[in-house]
Amino acid sequence: MAEKSKVLVIGVTGLIGKFVVEASAKSGHPTFALLAPPSTPSDPAEADLVEGFKSLGVRVVQGDINDPDTLLTAIRKVDVVISTVETSPEDQYKIVAAITMVGNIKRFLPSVFGSHVDRAHAVEPARTFYAAYYTNILRLLEEQGIPYTYVSCNFLAGWHSSTLAQPGATAPSRDKVVILGDGNAKVVFNREDDIGTYTIKAMDDPRTLNKILYIRPLANTYSMNDLVSLWERKIGKTLERFYIPEEQLLKQIRDAKSPDDLRWAISHSIFVKGDQTNFEIEPSFGVEASELYPDVKYTTVDEYLDQFV
Amino acid sequence: MAEKSKVLVIGVTGLIGKFVVEASAKSGHPTFALLAPPSTPSDPAEADLVEGFKSLGVRVVQGDINDPDTLLTAIRKVDVVISTVETSPEDQYKIVAAITMVGNIKRFLPSVFGSHVDRAHAVEPARTFYAAYYTNILRLLEEQGIPYTYVSCNFLAGWHSSTLAQPGATAPSRDKVVILGDGNAKVVFNREDDIGTYTIKAMDDPRTLNKILYIRPLANTYSMNDLVSLWERKIGKTLERFYIPEEQLLKQIRDAKSPDDLRWAISHSIFVKGDQTNFEIEPSFGVEASELYPDVKYTTVDEYLDQFV
Repeated sequence: MAEKSKVLVIGVTGLIGKFVVEASAKSGHPTFALLAPPSTPSDPAEADLVEGFKSLGVRVVQGDINDPDTLLTAIRKVDVVISTVETSPEDQYKIVAAITMVGNIKRFLPSVFGSHVDRAHAVEPARTFYAAYYTNILRLLEEQGIPYTYVSCNFLAGWHSSTLAQPGATAPSRDKVVILGDGNAKVVFNREDDIGTYTIKAMDDPRTLNKILYIRPLANTYSMNDLVSLWERKIGKTLERFYIPEEQLLKQIRDAKSPDDLRWAISHSIFVKGDQTNFEIEPSFGVEASELYPDVKYTTVDEYLDQFV
Repeated sequence: MAEKSKVLVIGVTGLIGKFVVEASAKSGHPTFALLAPPSTPSDPAEADLVEGFKSLGVRVVQGDINDPDTLLTAIRKVDVVISTVETSPEDQYKIVAAITMVGNIKRFLPSVFGSHVDRAHAVEPARTFYAAYYTNILRLLEEQGIPYTYVSCNFLAGWHSSTLAQPGATAPSRDKVVILGDGNAKVVFNREDDIGTYTIKAMDDPRTLNKILYIRPLANTYSMNDLVSLWERKIGKTLERFYIPEEQLLKQIRDAKSPDDLRWAISHSIFVKGDQTNFEIEPSFGVEASELYPDVKYTTVDEYLDQFV
């Protein structure tokens, strides 16, 4: 049996990184997690994270994207680099740069988890943001011939479906919801650990080489109207729905200050334009995760929402 | 007076690197030359090069593009990086990568000395070669926001006008010349030390930031017919001119093996299509060196050829 790819995950303190690290270690890959030296010596959350990693046999490597020597040292240890950083495009450029310098990385998964922005119908400032964060990264990889897989994981269940996509909420509402547009555009919610599982399965799969892996299982694809109805059936109660028409939302984007304008512009692309789902996945550029890995028993939105009833 | 920019030149053993190093040192810039550890311990040409550099106060830094640590160390010493490497695109990518990782370089001059290929009408395999070597590099810099100046120096006098552009020749012919196409397309020949001088003047000039510096002085712009006539007047003798029509050249390109096909395809672009001169330099993308620096007393082709009479 072939040796398992060695994996480095960069950006492990973010929303997805931890789940990718765990999925990698659990599937038997030698796994390295890059972690910046602690800013506060006794951050309990980070100490827990490190303890959890160590219990799975993950090797925590102290280093930093802005410290070239530590970054190169970490990358030299592995075959596959997965970035889940959520900071600036410059941080991603530095990871790509380190991969170029090391020169023998078999696959790079840039931090483009989220919508597939090249197909988005985004208004400003989301359009510029998308270009800097995602489109440029892909071009950098293509131009330099760095083997990549772009994971488009769409929404995170813990962050979005658990709140019915209501900003600031921490649990699904029981009285009212605000819906952007007419609420009929379809969006996709995936649980974070499933995203980790799919990512690790894809990272050295020849079928995902230089392709986009869309995590878009049918059972997790809902319009906001349908998602709210599902929740209503579960709690046996009807919510009051407030719709924000597209024109009003566009005005709100134009009038808002940064970063609210960006947040609303991204929401416009996803909830009004339906940019997570309004295109076919063609074999020339992408594959769908639940079709490629039918053995993965992912958690559906229906199952996920049960915990909140 | 402001401190002079510190300069690193990478690729000093090639056709132009030495002249750039010398121009930099002579104009008072702290100058560093990256040099790979010698493959043969007693290469006399390289020993002469190093001695020459040292006599000008140039600091020779031992290092290699493929040794990330030495490359980073060298780049950390300077403000401006000038690449004159003539090897693979991958070597240039590694320099760009190191600049990205170091993060505070004020200007990068990639090794794109030669024609400005984005405006070239090249046939294959030159088209693909150009894209890999030049166009991609520029995109990498633009996408990552690395400040650059692209020097399009056109032909080197020592390599081209001294031979009347006859492959394999070492001096201007006195009996016959082969001319591609009808010999009326205009090409540009610049002496290597002038290229060095213009490059160093441009490297931290705000007027050349993210622009193309074309070295295209009118006095060095000749059609092949006119260049041969100039030479004929100097030696008082008429050369026999053999013209290769475009169709025949294109067939020759298609039939030739690598790298001859590439060499002929580049010649087709320059001598037949006139790609060094068949466009206006617009302020939006470029500046012309002899206009920008009228004080530079460059050597004309006319003066240059005198030494061979």
